[in-house]
Amino acid sequence: MAYDNDNIFAKILRGEIPSEKLYEDADTYVFMDIMPRADGHCLIIPKTPCRNMLDATPEQLSACLRTVQKMGHAVMKAFDAKGVTVQQFNEAAGGQEVFHLHYHVLPRHEGVGLRAPGQMADFDVLKAQAEKIRAALA
Amino acid sequence: MAYDNDNIFAKILRGEIPSEKLYEDADTYVFMDIMPRADGHCLIIPKTPCRNMLDATPEQLSACLRTVQKMGHAVMKAFDAKGVTVQQFNEAAGGQEVFHLHYHVLPRHEGVGLRAPGQMADFDVLKAQAEKIRAALA
Repeated sequence: MAYDNDNIFAKILRGEIPSEKLYEDADTYVFMDIMPRADGHCLIIPKTPCRNMLDATPEQLSACLRTVQKMGHAVMKAFDAKGVTVQQFNEAAGGQEVFHLHYHVLPRHEGVGLRAPGQMADFDVLKAQAEKIRAALA
Repeated sequence: MAYDNDNIFAKILRGEIPSEKLYEDADTYVFMDIMPRADGHCLIIPKTPCRNMLDATPEQLSACLRTVQKMGHAVMKAFDAKGVTVQQFNEAAGGQEVFHLHYHVLPRHEGVGLRAPGQMADFDVLKAQAEKIRAALA
């Protein structure tokens, strides 16, 4: 399946639409999921185009996983979480909604389930949570 | 948190308990999940010890992700699936039950949800599914 340059994460990478940025390096970009299933739910994407894990290069996968690990530690520190769940969806049947490779990183607390998908965040709350994650990364 | 050499995936790697093997290379080992949440649900683990993503080395993460990608393509082919879901759990609060790094690869079909966790497979069915995946890899 082809990569669509007009997917929303491509637009975020080009700065055409805003995102609550948490981190970036030469190869990856990290921002808050605006429909968070847990406090601190963030998304890690490669800066270069690929549709999902199925067409990603080894370099894109390695770069993403390094940043996923970094963000896992950061969100645990920021939210005093005891665990992290990582999810990555490929194609619509696999749960993918935006067709630019992305990894979900979700800080978790014992006995607290994930929230149902599709609920838009309060943006003031999201910004305050992002501040905590950026502080944990610093 | 420390790595426990007696976790069941360490025992599988040492051949002390059986597994329905699908693939291995120098760095990774793949076998069927015995509580599959979808037909073809398989697990990718590094051959070297690490508790989860949080303490994994870049080499372990890269090796696992190369094999996750390979298995994603294989299970889609084997089950004529239209997508793949990848899950990876860290610490008990994050959903982890066996404390050796593992990636879940789940072939998916449009409109078919994952089964509830914790249901043991019929081993004859599991073996037949494993044959299909090994054939897709060949």
